[in-house]
Amino acid sequence: MSLEKNKRKPCIVWQTDFGLKWGAVASMKGVCKQVDPELECVDITHEIPQYHILAASRELNYVLPFWPKGTVFVSVVDPGVGTDRKASVALLSDGNYVVTPDNGTLTHVFQEIGIQEIRQIDERINRYPGTENIAVFHGRDLFAYTAARLASGVISFEEVGPAYPVEEVVLLEQGLIKAVVEDGKVSGIVSSVGDPFGSIALNVLTADFQKAGYSHGDMVHVVLAHQGKVYYEEDVLYGKSFGYVPVGAPILFDSSTNYIELGINQGNFRDQYQAEEGMDWTFQLSN
Amino acid sequence: MSLEKNKRKPCIVWQTDFGLKWGAVASMKGVCKQVDPELECVDITHEIPQYHILAASRELNYVLPFWPKGTVFVSVVDPGVGTDRKASVALLSDGNYVVTPDNGTLTHVFQEIGIQEIRQIDERINRYPGTENIAVFHGRDLFAYTAARLASGVISFEEVGPAYPVEEVVLLEQGLIKAVVEDGKVSGIVSSVGDPFGSIALNVLTADFQKAGYSHGDMVHVVLAHQGKVYYEEDVLYGKSFGYVPVGAPILFDSSTNYIELGINQGNFRDQYQAEEGMDWTFQLSN
Amino acid sequence: MSLEKNKRKPCIVWQTDFGLKWGAVASMKGVCKQVDPELECVDITHEIPQYHILAASRELNYVLPFWPKGTVFVSVVDPGVGTDRKASVALLSDGNYVVTPDNGTLTHVFQEIGIQEIRQIDERINRYPGTENIAVFHGRDLFAYTAARLASGVISFEEVGPAYPVEEVVLLEQGLIKAVVEDGKVSGIVSSVGDPFGSIALNVLTADFQKAGYSHGDMVHVVLAHQGKVYYEEDVLYGKSFGYVPVGAPILFDSSTNYIELGINQGNFRDQYQAEEGMDWTFQLSN
Repeated sequence: MSLEKNKRKPCIVWQTDFGLKWGAVASMKGVCKQVDPELECVDITHEIPQYHILAASRELNYVLPFWPKGTVFVSVVDPGVGTDRKASVALLSDGNYVVTPDNGTLTHVFQEIGIQEIRQIDERINRYPGTENIAVFHGRDLFAYTAARLASGVISFEEVGPAYPVEEVVLLEQGLIKAVVEDGKVSGIVSSVGDPFGSIALNVLTADFQKAGYSHGDMVHVVLAHQGKVYYEEDVLYGKSFGYVPVGAPILFDSSTNYIELGINQGNFRDQYQAEEGMDWTFQLSN
Repeated sequence: MSLEKNKRKPCIVWQTDFGLKWGAVASMKGVCKQVDPELECVDITHEIPQYHILAASRELNYVLPFWPKGTVFVSVVDPGVGTDRKASVALLSDGNYVVTPDNGTLTHVFQEIGIQEIRQIDERINRYPGTENIAVFHGRDLFAYTAARLASGVISFEEVGPAYPVEEVVLLEQGLIKAVVEDGKVSGIVSSVGDPFGSIALNVLTADFQKAGYSHGDMVHVVLAHQGKVYYEEDVLYGKSFGYVPVGAPILFDSSTNYIELGINQGNFRDQYQAEEGMDWTFQLSN
Repeated sequence: MSLEKNKRKPCIVWQTDFGLKWGAVASMKGVCKQVDPELECVDITHEIPQYHILAASRELNYVLPFWPKGTVFVSVVDPGVGTDRKASVALLSDGNYVVTPDNGTLTHVFQEIGIQEIRQIDERINRYPGTENIAVFHGRDLFAYTAARLASGVISFEEVGPAYPVEEVVLLEQGLIKAVVEDGKVSGIVSSVGDPFGSIALNVLTADFQKAGYSHGDMVHVVLAHQGKVYYEEDVLYGKSFGYVPVGAPILFDSSTNYIELGINQGNFRDQYQAEEGMDWTFQLSN
């Protein structure tokens, strides 16, 4: 049908830890254009901290809901490239696809969106011809090529390769834990430190924080600790946005990720307090 | 008409201070693709120095004349996000649109191109659905969404929201002042320091400099001062391009912005002399 | 023919040393969109080290084979802008075009792909109107404009300007030399140090290395020297990919460029050993 014929193909949306100082990313896009010149490539970031799979998982989950359903996301943070970790394509419950090494990158979308089905890329069929002897660049030779063939309609999702149980998807513990609310106290971990504004993200959803009894305009007692040792303790305004406190003052606010963040108006909380993310970087919020 | 139907939609051209280390920019582009998958997004930069509204104003003004008329520019350097600064769309005198917080970002285009009409975004209509409770990311929730609807033709310029007087547009003084020419002497300020080549831009137009009597091949006496204190004084060749002086030598040249710049052939003037921009970084050029 | 009419125009693929902190790149893309709004621009990198023509030559050669034939590449690392170096367009033997200052940028594609024909841009015809008095930004005023006109079909390759002998193309010696194999010993130079993973590239092709008798799983004796002085000497596994050695261990592997590289699994060889590229950074591989 002519309508079908004119239907726009989904975008391929990229993130890697390759950086943009060399040609790796452009070679992946070239492979896509060879498969189908109509395919449009858009970048999330190529500056995921090196080998930081959990950061890849988070960014993917942050961006994905804002794209049209059916988009093909490619995430390549792949310290195990060329070994036996699976090269996979996940079909999410919302209809989006993620092409990625199955190494923990799917942690957040597994938990927040759901994975409907996952398939391991069959390298005999879905490998860029001529690269059979190269083992270090699956981003180009497997992931880009497979993503392009899928987005273009050259192969169906079934033709990616054999399905395997969703229960086998690799998940990273830190990405799964949520803050605990008890007697109006919220306890959890710093789940990420944001670039470039340096706010720190707490693993409590805005909705859960408000259900715990906190409202905009409240002063909240914030305690931050690293390995149990307190390094920040202050009463902080819970406000809608930075501009509700003076320049240089701290603020607890509803971030664009739907989680609560702690920042400094026109300042940088992370740099000022050497805050980091992780299981042993904990917080407590109370009245 | 079939011609009308095939007309290409204008690009959305972006600049922010968000950086590209996380997913903010890609979430904005996703919103555009949801509005209309045909819309093409192109970046100016996402590395405007944080909160540096004047730099945003300059870059916008530098790039804009080289794009087809009707392009929709989006600039988000927005320290006041979520407070009462206006979220606006300006229709410039040359037919281009700028979607931006009205916080000084329009200074240079106001002066050099002119603003035909400006409208405040009506958040009740032009906000990405589901983000009503988020106040920290107008870039995605208001600006991207409104830009895409405008570029796609979903809304007309009138449907952006109510117009307000162009006289009310916020302007930044430093962006408005021009060098003074008197008795063949040109006095002004360093209006920007350029990345990555480190040339410093003087606020005198090439045309005005030449009208003051200077020609390529002249030696010009250059004096630079900070808060009145001279930190550079030298006779410098006024040439067409870097290559007209030896590597390491200074040169005064006609920059691609149509203003005069001072640089070092294959060197970096800014780093070598710790030059900065601003009202108290002054220069004087004479014979 | 309607098929002809619907044929997609080639992409314009960019690399420069301009950085992405300012509007230079976006002004070049705007010029392309003015020539023809259908043209799609894709970036290789804008972070070629400043004035590093040899790096530009390498990246171009690395990326180019992965793009559809007929693509128009633009490379602008141009310390001699505005002087008498030629502004050129090369038609490669594989059917791709390269728009570039003829200053050594074509070294690697000359050697590895071949140049079929080269023409000097006729500035009287192929210069963005209104920029006749600007000599510092050929990237925008000559290269972008000419690339767009060529990609769009406004001009033919012949209309770029007069052809000149391929023998006159500027070549850089370091880009031409290849490792020497003698009695199973391979001697050569470090031809590049990679971002962001910090592996160092040796100027020996994987195929030549294997022909010299080395196989995956072999331990290879590696000696690195700077100006004849050894700074690294170790027996290193020759493997398919990083993951075949423990984290922190060195590995010699088949890189995605088809040359042999030396790296550290999840580490950074360049930073750890202060290795650099160049004629006096030599290596020897033996049993």
